[in-house]
Amino acid sequence: MQIAIQGEPGSFSHEAALKFFPEATIVPCSYSPEVFRRLVDGDVDAAAIPIENSLAGSVVEHYDLLLTHDVAVERETLLGIHHNLIAVPGAQIERLVRVYSHPIALAQCRRFFAEHPQIEPVPYYDTAGSVKQLMELRDRSCGAIASAQAAAYYGGEVLAPNLEDNAENYTRFFLMRRRNEVAANQQANKVSLAFQVENRPGTLVGALQAFVDQQINLTKIESRPVPGKPWQYIFYTDYQLASPELAEKALQLLDEHCSMVKELGRYSAGQIEG
Amino acid sequence: MQIAIQGEPGSFSHEAALKFFPEATIVPCSYSPEVFRRLVDGDVDAAAIPIENSLAGSVVEHYDLLLTHDVAVERETLLGIHHNLIAVPGAQIERLVRVYSHPIALAQCRRFFAEHPQIEPVPYYDTAGSVKQLMELRDRSCGAIASAQAAAYYGGEVLAPNLEDNAENYTRFFLMRRRNEVAANQQANKVSLAFQVENRPGTLVGALQAFVDQQINLTKIESRPVPGKPWQYIFYTDYQLASPELAEKALQLLDEHCSMVKELGRYSAGQIEG
Repeated sequence: MQIAIQGEPGSFSHEAALKFFPEATIVPCSYSPEVFRRLVDGDVDAAAIPIENSLAGSVVEHYDLLLTHDVAVERETLLGIHHNLIAVPGAQIERLVRVYSHPIALAQCRRFFAEHPQIEPVPYYDTAGSVKQLMELRDRSCGAIASAQAAAYYGGEVLAPNLEDNAENYTRFFLMRRRNEVAANQQANKVSLAFQVENRPGTLVGALQAFVDQQINLTKIESRPVPGKPWQYIFYTDYQLASPELAEKALQLLDEHCSMVKELGRYSAGQIEG
Repeated sequence: MQIAIQGEPGSFSHEAALKFFPEATIVPCSYSPEVFRRLVDGDVDAAAIPIENSLAGSVVEHYDLLLTHDVAVERETLLGIHHNLIAVPGAQIERLVRVYSHPIALAQCRRFFAEHPQIEPVPYYDTAGSVKQLMELRDRSCGAIASAQAAAYYGGEVLAPNLEDNAENYTRFFLMRRRNEVAANQQANKVSLAFQVENRPGTLVGALQAFVDQQINLTKIESRPVPGKPWQYIFYTDYQLASPELAEKALQLLDEHCSMVKELGRYSAGQIEG
């Protein structure tokens, strides 16, 4: 079982992939489009991608890529995000002058930087990648912020755990497969959908009417621009699947108001673990 | 008239500010929270901020800041975005090895980089800032991608205009004032609104019902996470203002389903100039 992820081994995506399939072999990719290309091309069996963080919001690039590739969501999982200060073994917090990490991770650890004004936060392309670089350079004046898994993977030492300002920090991950290979899920209770309304007044409200009429519980709605068509949008929505029949009815009603409707997946909602 | 912007002089925000007020004095700020703080504190009279790009989507940080500061939107304008290759006067495209710009600008000029594989795109924090740095270093092997205004401001030479892959590239800017100082606009035909629904099933659809019932033309809906409350969202919506009475009615209906409703502004919709 080969699962593509964006980022380095030891990343949160790596952790999510192993949560989906503990025995999986990870295929790290530098960029998200490469993850989708490899899945579509058959280089890998599946891909694990973050779709939303409970503090930072949606990973909009992944919505764009979900729409334009012939893949579907098979499963969802929620991962608690814990940031750790990691350094070369033997390094001391008091002597650190720079700490590297992904900009979102740095932004989620503001209290740590406020308490350690001598340490400069430095943006890096990837959380796990910042640990990898640190261990290659073996510079004791620098640290990185990443998962405990990244520390273990690269042999770094966790100098301080749980640096995150807000403990309620979760990321939703999707397990994606090629569309024709997704396993049917009889227990599915959640649907992700993309739709585009026609470009005339009232069409968005008309489309939303489909959900209102069927009393379907929308849990999320997100919009992304249509390239080359200013102020037209693709809408991405998640809703609870009361019954497959109701979902089909809503899809039919939606179709009447939309120039495009694409179901991205039916899956079991991920649960926050205690 | 002092207008705060995020970024360096010569940026697209600078251009937007001058479109709002041709005689304005620009107050550049390094970070967006500083722009909002300076406006609230009374250091400046107004602020000009990008809220959405027709290709890249919403500037979500600005939605978050609009919600948490006591400011309101007074005007909207649309700016055509044209990217230019800028270098030290006398430099030649063929000899460039690196070109700096904001990651979004680099991503919007992929064709140029495909046609010039010897040139490496290098991310920089700001478009105009990349020109500023170039002119300080006077390095003829490097270029920057930014507006024609940035070239003029810093004395750079435009080696090639209109590098953007997609000509339909516009950014929406808001002019913001302190909430109690916004001029009433009798010609307003557009409203921006933030709302949060209560955390129980069906509340989002219930809130959207208010718009459906009043046949109000929603032009946009966007969601952002509520910090510390996983999978709860603030919704940001724009709608056409058919009449002030209808808007008040919708607000009342919304209130019944929402734990929070905040009108961000009533203003005249910006027009794309020919």
